[in-house]
This record gives sequence, structure tokens and C-alpha cells, in this order.
Amino acid sequence: MTTTRALISYGSYKLGGWKLKNVSLRPLREKELLIEVVASGICQTDLHFAGAESGFGVHYPRVMGHEGAGYVRDIGPNTRVAKVGDPVIMSFSSCKSCEPCARGHPAHCTGFNAINFEVVPGNFVFKEASASSTVSGPDIYGQFFGQSSFASSSIVNEDSIVNVSGLVESRDELTLLSPLGCGVQTGSGAIINAANAGPDDRVAVIGLGGVGLSAVMGAKIVGCTQIIGIDRHESRLELAKELGATHVVRVDAESDLGEVTAAVRAITGDLGTNITLDTTGVPGLIAQGVKMTGFKGKILQVGTAPETGKLMIPIHEFMVSGRQFMGVVEGDVVPREYIPKLIRWVREGKLPLEKIVKFYQADEFQAAIQDMQSGQTVKPVILW
Amino acid sequence: MTTTRALISYGSYKLGGWKLKNVSLRPLREKELLIEVVASGICQTDLHFAGAESGFGVHYPRVMGHEGAGYVRDIGPNTRVAKVGDPVIMSFSSCKSCEPCARGHPAHCTGFNAINFEVVPGNFVFKEASASSTVSGPDIYGQFFGQSSFASSSIVNEDSIVNVSGLVESRDELTLLSPLGCGVQTGSGAIINAANAGPDDRVAVIGLGGVGLSAVMGAKIVGCTQIIGIDRHESRLELAKELGATHVVRVDAESDLGEVTAAVRAITGDLGTNITLDTTGVPGLIAQGVKMTGFKGKILQVGTAPETGKLMIPIHEFMVSGRQFMGVVEGDVVPREYIPKLIRWVREGKLPLEKIVKFYQADEFQAAIQDMQSGQTVKPVILW
Repeated sequence: MTTTRALISYGSYKLGGWKLKNVSLRPLREKELLIEVVASGICQTDLHFAGAESGFGVHYPRVMGHEGAGYVRDIGPNTRVAKVGDPVIMSFSSCKSCEPCARGHPAHCTGFNAINFEVVPGNFVFKEASASSTVSGPDIYGQFFGQSSFASSSIVNEDSIVNVSGLVESRDELTLLSPLGCGVQTGSGAIINAANAGPDDRVAVIGLGGVGLSAVMGAKIVGCTQIIGIDRHESRLELAKELGATHVVRVDAESDLGEVTAAVRAITGDLGTNITLDTTGVPGLIAQGVKMTGFKGKILQVGTAPETGKLMIPIHEFMVSGRQFMGVVEGDVVPREYIPKLIRWVREGKLPLEKIVKFYQADEFQAAIQDMQSGQTVKPVILW
Repeated sequence: MTTTRALISYGSYKLGGWKLKNVSLRPLREKELLIEVVASGICQTDLHFAGAESGFGVHYPRVMGHEGAGYVRDIGPNTRVAKVGDPVIMSFSSCKSCEPCARGHPAHCTGFNAINFEVVPGNFVFKEASASSTVSGPDIYGQFFGQSSFASSSIVNEDSIVNVSGLVESRDELTLLSPLGCGVQTGSGAIINAANAGPDDRVAVIGLGGVGLSAVMGAKIVGCTQIIGIDRHESRLELAKELGATHVVRVDAESDLGEVTAAVRAITGDLGTNITLDTTGVPGLIAQGVKMTGFKGKILQVGTAPETGKLMIPIHEFMVSGRQFMGVVEGDVVPREYIPKLIRWVREGKLPLEKIVKFYQADEFQAAIQDMQSGQTVKPVILW
């Protein structure tokens, strides 16, 4: 077989622990597919779980990557979701048997963290290629989000597969679509699916990274009357306007965060928003998100807050105003139902992914991450 | 005209400020009706707004009462909701023009507090009868919740009127139905309407007063699989079982509140509830309510918390589990649509109001309030 290259995290990215290497793959097991990865988006979650020295879900050495797209090259026993040659987009995995899964909420699977972030000790997917043909190199964990798509080929859980055969025409198109499986469905799905936004709604999106800008595009698709983008960076505010934001508010680190709420209140004629989406996970901004939300409004928590982060809700005021604070993972979508819709919107020009995506060759991964961290690139995508 | 008797609050109930007196009524204005009140339920909210010396919505002297039922005896100009002789149930008023009103959420009217609790200075409804025929007695405020139904006749805002002609046959039946306009719609509406509960749901109801027991009955009506009643009083737990609770948990003031959550978790097979309703407004119990709620579960805040009461939400855990904390007033129902449903359920025996209601003559109002406060009576109803 051809040589597989993989971006291996041997330790925290910050400490230089990520390296591009040649690897081999173990044989397929039940309900697994061998995927030739054409592209894989980088997301903050990759850096979170391979950015620390230790902690929940941190396992070295491991291949990260969870916004992959590619082609099926082989299938393991009892695998029915796709056949060899099918184009696929990869998303998260879920247990399919717990109550939230059974009720159509796989992103809130009670086993989500264990399935997508943990490893089964000893269940290695990759093996580092050794200079010697007789001595094999160290074993490497895979199946991050069921996929570990920072590799030119990977072994993917059947459950992470969204078969897009018949929906995608070319390799170039598939390449562009790779971020649909996480960031884009998270932002747009929160607005369209979880919040059930419509033309009468005034929406505020706090934080304009890949998730936030996808939320802006989602709000535009369903025709929300006001779409207010909130971020620190002027360039992101400009991009948000290009993607459908009707108003933007800059967060000035020097000023009281309450000024953000005052600005949103003014834009909405003091009614507040009907839907507020936080993508930052910053408790101080989330608290403002609650304040900028009007009567019967929904505050959706999509950004990952620190483990100890708390939101203080004034109970009586919240009751009188009939507000809702809701946690939402991955837009609360069923990827096999929702990603085909996203593809249609991309093809119709309603979801201009090309405006947020920038491509990098695999060996440029450091530049890709630096550009994401500096804010220069919204959604870096690694080409394999 | 016949003499009108009214229960006038001259000051805080605790300080003996409530007195039954003869009064006269001013002439009707536009969109007002003269209602002969047959019965009016007592609710904690009456005692809240006429239990303090001063504060928001506290205006003396005033007639309280907001769960009235009666007959139309006269109508003011431009009043179209009922005609003389119609039986009516009285509920809250709303502005009908703000965004929540326009979107079908009148209980979250942005003017709810002003309309239902405040007074227009000088806009008196009652005048205390004077011993002298030439000197008139002091002026008395009315229109608490648009109705001030602690009187044998009252002037009621058109908007508080639910015309039940054709739905109610007798004066006795109308008498029993008086609490539908607040407590019963609040509890049952939160479960059936706001939470949209169904047969697959496990429900916990914290606090088994009139609102909580109405929630239990509502959960039974829609066939929830587990209905867990939580209260301090054994008698209330027994009554909850009679009304449909499948399980009960006693709150022991001596013990850690966490034991309540542990008990609910055990009852639900460690899944937690799908719907938790707090009717107590006690922040410590609300925090337990969040903890006893499972993945994708909803916590509904229905009980009035102290103005300064706060709920600390762990942001990350809330997001992962996909929970929702939502404020709900009056079950978020439209009374003119929902009360006819309640009447049908009462007639079908599905909402056995007679098990929570106890009748008192007007001059027994002190006994009625004492019995409510001691827990002996769930829903005292004053007969006029």
C-alpha cells in the first residue's frame, strides 16, 4: 500500500509536540472504514485536546483531526454505511443507544466524551514507520472524534461517516466541504436547528471564528431580520458583514463589557435579541449575552467554557422575561440528515464556505495553526 | 344596586390589614365589565402583594384576588368579549401589542408587571361605604390582575375575561372552576404547554402547592412515564400520589438537599428527569432541580424566587448535557385558548379540582388563609 502520512501529536502543540511522519495502519475491524483523506479542517478542539500535557481526553501519541473529507478505500466486516469509492464527510460518533441518541440528539449522547475523546488503552490505529524494516516504530492512537483525519489515510468509525455519494461531484468540491462535519454544522445548526430561527428573529452571535461566522451564514439563510456579529477583530466584523451580518459590535478589551450589551440593545430598539449565540466560552461575555437577550429569548451556549466557568442567572428576572439558557453541542443536528442540507446551500451559493476557508499543504500545518491563532485565517484546511 | 362586599387590604395581611367591608363601585369605563363574582381562589401572590408594607406593586388600600369566576352584570362602552349574563373565568391581563403578546406569549408581556400589579394613581374602583349618606368613605384601588376579585362584584378589564358561556352549566360548576385562571393553568400549562411533555417523559415537580399539584395532574393527563412529587409535607406527598404521582420524595429540612437529587436520580435509573418544574422559588432547591435533570432535559422556573436569588449554572457541563433552564409565567398559555381545555379535562374527571379546592365563606377569609399557610388546604376558594 502507499505510504500514509500523519500529523502525530507526541505532546502539547505549544511545546512543539506535533510532527508530520510516515505511518502504517493496522487492519480494519468491524464497522470501520479505511478512508483516503483529501482534506481536514483544523478546529480549536484539536488544539484543546493536544494542547495540554495531560487531562481528560489527552492521550499521546495520537493523531488529531475531526473535520475530514475523503474517499472510502476499504471497509471492515459488517460495515454498511458506504462502499469502496464513495465520497464521505466525517463527523462525530455517538453510541446510538442512550436516551438522547434514541431521541434524535446524538450530539448530546451521554457517551459523547468517552467515544470521541477517550481511547481504549492499547487500541492503536497507526504505527510510526521505522527506518529499519524489521523493528517497528511506536504505536499511535487514532479515532479522535471517530476519525483522526490529520492523516492521508485513516481508520474511521462507521458512525462518523456521512456518505455524500451522489451529492458531491469532484475532489475539489469535497475538499472545500471538509469543515461541514464540525464547525459549520455547529454554528449554522445552532441557529437553524436548535434555536429554530426564522425571519422575525433578531440574532446576536458572540465570537466570529468558524463557528460564529457559520452561525451568521445560517441566520442569513433563514432570513433573520437582524444579525449582529460581535468580535474583537475589525477584520472579522468586516467578514461577518460580507456573510450576512446586518450590524456589528466590536468588543473593546479596554472597555466595560456592558457596552457590548448597550450597543446590542440600541440596535434592537431596546427589545433585545430573540436569539443569542455564544461561541467564545468566556463567562463574562456569556453573562452579557443573557443581558442582551429580550423577553422569550433564547441564549445558546455553544462555545467551550473553562471547566470551572459559572453563569449566575437572576432567577426571578429570568422567569418574568421567559428567557431560556440552553446548552448546544454540534448544533444538536443529526449529521446524516443535516450535512446534505449544508451541501445544497453551498451549491446554491447560500453558504459561501470559500470565504472562510484557506487551504494549506500538510507540511504547512504550523503556518495553518499560527494563522488561525492570530486570526488571519478563519478555517484552515489541511490538504493531504 | 345591591350592596357589594369586598375584602379590602388596608395594609399587610400579617399586621391584620385585611378587612371585609361594604363598598360601592364607580361607573364602568371603556373595555370594562361589571362582574358578579361567585368565587375567587386565594393564591400566594395575593399575600405577596398585600403582605408587605411597601414595595413594587404594593398599593393600599386595595382589593386583591386574581382567581375569580362569575357572571357579567353590565358592560362598559366598546366591550365585546362577553354580554350580560355570560359566565366568565378571570385571568391575567396583557398589553396585546408588545412582541411577546404579538407572538402568542401574553404571560411574558413586557408590561405584565405594570398592568397586573401597579395602579394608575387616582384610578380608584371601589369606595368604602360610609355610615353617613352625605359623606363618602375612602377610595379603594382595584384591578389587581385586571380583576380584584375578592369582592362580590368587581370592575374587570376586558382583557382578563375568559368567556365560558356554553362551556359551564351551573353556578356550582363555575364556583369550582375559579382557580383555573391562575394556579391551575400555571402548573398544568408549564408541563403540557411550555415543556410540551409527553408519554416518554420523566417529570419532577418541586413543591406541591396548588401550582405543583396542578403540574402533577397535567403530567398525568399527558401520560408521563414517571411523575415525581417533591415536598416537605407527608400529606402533600399522599395527595400527589392520589393525583397521579408515580413516586414521591420528601424534603427533610434536617438533611442535605443533595439527598433529594440522589433520590430522584435513583428513581429515574440514574438518567435524571426530562422535565423538572420548580414551584418553590427557593434557590437551593432550584440548584438541586438542575442536578436532577438529565441530558437534553428542561428545568422550568415557575416559582417566584426572591429578587436577589441567583442560580449558578456550570456552563461547560450544561452545554455538554444540552440542558435548558427556562423561565415560565402562567404556563406560557393564552388563557382564552387553554382554559376551555382545562374545563373539558375537569368535566372528563382528568383534572379532579375538587381534591385540591376547599370553599370558605367570605367572612371566613382568615381561616382560609391560615389553612393555606399551614398546608391544611391546598387551594382555598372564597365564596361570595
